[in-house]
Amino acid sequence: MEPMKWWGWGREEIAFTHEDKPALRGFIHRVLELDVGAAPTAARAPAFADLRVPAPMLPPALRSRLEQAVGAEHVSVDDLDRVVHARGKSLRDLVRHRAGDVGRVPDVVVRPGDEEAVVGVLRAVLDADAVLIPFGGGSNISGSLEAALDETRPVVSVDLGRLGRVLEVDDVSRLARVQAGIFGPALEQQLGVRGWTAGHFPDSFAHSTLGGWIATRSSGMQSDKYGDIADLTRAVRMVTPTGVLVTQPVPSTSTGPSVREMVLGSEGRLGIITEATIHVHRVPPRRTILGYLLPDWPRALAAMRELSEAEVSPSVTRVSDARETQFSFATRKRPTWVDRLSSAALQRYLRRRGIDAEQMCLSFIGYEGSERHVAEQRKRVAAIVKRHGGLSIGSSPGKLYDQKKFDTPYIRDFLLDRGALADVSETSAPWSALAPLYDNTVAAARGAFAQLGVTGYVMCHLSHSYHAGACLYFTFALKPSGLRAPLEEYDVVKSAIQEAFIDNGATLSHHHGVGTEHARWLERDISPPGVAMVRALLDGIDPGRNLNPGKIA
Amino acid sequence: MEPMKWWGWGREEIAFTHEDKPALRGFIHRVLELDVGAAPTAARAPAFADLRVPAPMLPPALRSRLEQAVGAEHVSVDDLDRVVHARGKSLRDLVRHRAGDVGRVPDVVVRPGDEEAVVGVLRAVLDADAVLIPFGGGSNISGSLEAALDETRPVVSVDLGRLGRVLEVDDVSRLARVQAGIFGPALEQQLGVRGWTAGHFPDSFAHSTLGGWIATRSSGMQSDKYGDIADLTRAVRMVTPTGVLVTQPVPSTSTGPSVREMVLGSEGRLGIITEATIHVHRVPPRRTILGYLLPDWPRALAAMRELSEAEVSPSVTRVSDARETQFSFATRKRPTWVDRLSSAALQRYLRRRGIDAEQMCLSFIGYEGSERHVAEQRKRVAAIVKRHGGLSIGSSPGKLYDQKKFDTPYIRDFLLDRGALADVSETSAPWSALAPLYDNTVAAARGAFAQLGVTGYVMCHLSHSYHAGACLYFTFALKPSGLRAPLEEYDVVKSAIQEAFIDNGATLSHHHGVGTEHARWLERDISPPGVAMVRALLDGIDPGRNLNPGKIA
Repeated sequence: MEPMKWWGWGREEIAFTHEDKPALRGFIHRVLELDVGAAPTAARAPAFADLRVPAPMLPPALRSRLEQAVGAEHVSVDDLDRVVHARGKSLRDLVRHRAGDVGRVPDVVVRPGDEEAVVGVLRAVLDADAVLIPFGGGSNISGSLEAALDETRPVVSVDLGRLGRVLEVDDVSRLARVQAGIFGPALEQQLGVRGWTAGHFPDSFAHSTLGGWIATRSSGMQSDKYGDIADLTRAVRMVTPTGVLVTQPVPSTSTGPSVREMVLGSEGRLGIITEATIHVHRVPPRRTILGYLLPDWPRALAAMRELSEAEVSPSVTRVSDARETQFSFATRKRPTWVDRLSSAALQRYLRRRGIDAEQMCLSFIGYEGSERHVAEQRKRVAAIVKRHGGLSIGSSPGKLYDQKKFDTPYIRDFLLDRGALADVSETSAPWSALAPLYDNTVAAARGAFAQLGVTGYVMCHLSHSYHAGACLYFTFALKPSGLRAPLEEYDVVKSAIQEAFIDNGATLSHHHGVGTEHARWLERDISPPGVAMVRALLDGIDPGRNLNPGKIA
Repeated sequence: MEPMKWWGWGREEIAFTHEDKPALRGFIHRVLELDVGAAPTAARAPAFADLRVPAPMLPPALRSRLEQAVGAEHVSVDDLDRVVHARGKSLRDLVRHRAGDVGRVPDVVVRPGDEEAVVGVLRAVLDADAVLIPFGGGSNISGSLEAALDETRPVVSVDLGRLGRVLEVDDVSRLARVQAGIFGPALEQQLGVRGWTAGHFPDSFAHSTLGGWIATRSSGMQSDKYGDIADLTRAVRMVTPTGVLVTQPVPSTSTGPSVREMVLGSEGRLGIITEATIHVHRVPPRRTILGYLLPDWPRALAAMRELSEAEVSPSVTRVSDARETQFSFATRKRPTWVDRLSSAALQRYLRRRGIDAEQMCLSFIGYEGSERHVAEQRKRVAAIVKRHGGLSIGSSPGKLYDQKKFDTPYIRDFLLDRGALADVSETSAPWSALAPLYDNTVAAARGAFAQLGVTGYVMCHLSHSYHAGACLYFTFALKPSGLRAPLEEYDVVKSAIQEAFIDNGATLSHHHGVGTEHARWLERDISPPGVAMVRALLDGIDPGRNLNPGKIA
């Protein structure tokens, strides 16, 4: 799989557009005072040829060692290759790349074809006192892929894209041994032909890898059923400065502090993940996602909480707040049932059921399993939704959601082309904290918009439910004032949201990792002794700070 | 709660006896060539007064600091107190204590009443370059509580027994904030009066604490439903050399390598756990454990595996091999249905169903929830059991099992009184590895018995099921030959079993921890780089090795 385009998300030939979504232009104009139908206000990006890409600083001895390790044809100092590997796809990354600011571009990109080659690369890097940054799909949005601007040592980006195979499926144990550089679609394809699924579908699915998921503690859309990546990863192999770490794929163990859990979320700070043994499941006979409307956000939260306590086990539990619900309706392509919402008759119908179209919250609940299981679960969920004043709206909206779920990240490029900034921040907290967390985060974002004097929008959905709480996933957008650098204004809003998370007992990130973007909140999240523990681990294994330095802590 | 008696498990007034179990004497005579009805062959233990307990070496300055921290009345240099805190309850611990070998007895036992007092104790210990060993219920069987024999620094045992309260229950999030020194029964009692349960029931339940469970990565009898302690512990507070670690009770987070998981299994090497926030569940309306008979071990394993894949969610999945099944039947108190097994008619009945009384495996499957849920689950499980040639034997055996489940550890003292050694080793492995793991472990134990020329018995049950595998829990007993020290013969058998675990892709321990007992297999379990990662963490936080040194790695 090719890495993504250098200036934005995904592939050149795919783009988000308002043109096939009749209501979207009006919606964006209303909430951001931005006319996306007008000519683009911001340059998409300079032509690559016009970029000033620093020449690689690669000592010949290091280059030679790297070539020995991976083969000369897999050592690249090509400018485009290096720029593509310079950063992830955070809003900050996109804005800077588009402005021609490519940062501390790696000096070389290497593509090892097996674990032995990875060992060779690591040894070469350590011997040369260089810097090594592992690269999977490059979809990271927390600044985990970028070298420090003042890094004077050679920077080696290690692209794991050649490690893309499912090596073995244990049908009895329902475990697959998989190379870490495999992309989501290839993983599902290679498992699928044998009748299996890993069930891990993050938004970044098409452009992220198993190793990247593990390195950042990823979560997917169906993690309610399949578990977060931390749950479904049973064993890892990682090339570290002290040798190749090999853990056993045991279901549970008491071998001291969990080494497996030290690898999860390590963001390249301990070494390079080459392989993992993960849970797989038989592709279920039946799979469906149903849409529901809840009358308002408090009742939406209450319904999701009750689901987490009930004798049901949905694969997806998702509910949007009223603002995100309105956004969802605005992105529909053709007139469908939802268009009837504007009809007076439907409005009356909803009102009779206690649902105000301005307050209502769109929910998707997913079911997987046997026909009988799905039918039973649907019945029980419907009863709970009804108890909270909601109603089922059938399977069409869920199908639509399922089809377009991986397109969301393209919206940022669409807005950037038109001069607006959009980004996401997600967190998790106990059920009892969710309502104040939500209120205070929305207030913080709006306070930031007001402080800056910009037009902005903030919306949210609950994306994953657990026994004791849930993930809240916020999306925010603003039209910069033009008075300051856009990223300066972005920082004010992003920081206000992150501060609200921390102030309300929520974590700095549910599944996007720490990187450089969230590092400043780490101490307030896990307390200074927690940071000391993380540092003890990282510094003990990498005393020279050669492995993706500057990330996490 | 009082700590256990110094020479054995549990309370003085409770003892295991064969006298109310008509078949047990014959059974033990048959399998161990030991007549438990004869007069005890081994002295139970010396009178405490006859023990030689080393005088405490406690520098006055340290004593004074400890008294300041916890109050003078909570600083004890009493001989019995110190001996009780010298070790856990491993077979090795019991044998040595009974022989009057009390080891490196701690110099002082302190009982902090709150976290601030724990902070004071830790500071005093570090300032004096002393050694600190946290003590919960003292039930550890992996050597995690004993100071090194050659430890020359003062040894301070910190008994957390005064930290025994449920502080807060969050009804909405289903989380309880609990002090770490709480014992199992007090936890369930304090939660129970409010309608909640933690659902954590290890064999040691009556004599172990929440902090101990976390420090050793405990698992309980109903962990199939409630999760291992690692799953149900959402947040921890731990007093460490760098301050009080405080993590948030968030359901999931991507804050780098998990600090929560570093505390789990840390066995006192990083500090003292003072508090945890754990999952709680409403006490279910219906709870039942049913008995089943499977025709043989291969089909027993296959049935449990199928349960793990089916749309059922039992609270308990347990099945004994044929030898443990026979032992279970031999421990019955009164003639019950199982006595009819000896009747020719019943034998014929079982044979007609393909069940050979010599091969059959007793299983307990637990169900919890609403009446409807339990009824549905029972039906589905019965169909699966039947498919594997098994049959249901109703609820009486399950009730019996449920009542006597915490008495098992007393059997070791009963056998020790009569000169026989019994112990346990548990592990976990993927489903596909369980059959060879079982065969090879049994063969290894028998090989060890033969090598030693002793009569021995080894039996096993599958105690926990997971997506990808299960825990196998082995119990073994031997009658020492008298030619060598009993512990020397015990070591040969225990080592043979542990080696078989490691050689067959299983872990050194599923839920008993590493301590000193299993430390020599750690490197082969998690690989040398894994040990390096654990050491980096431990050494970074405790460079002076003041915190329970010598445990884990």
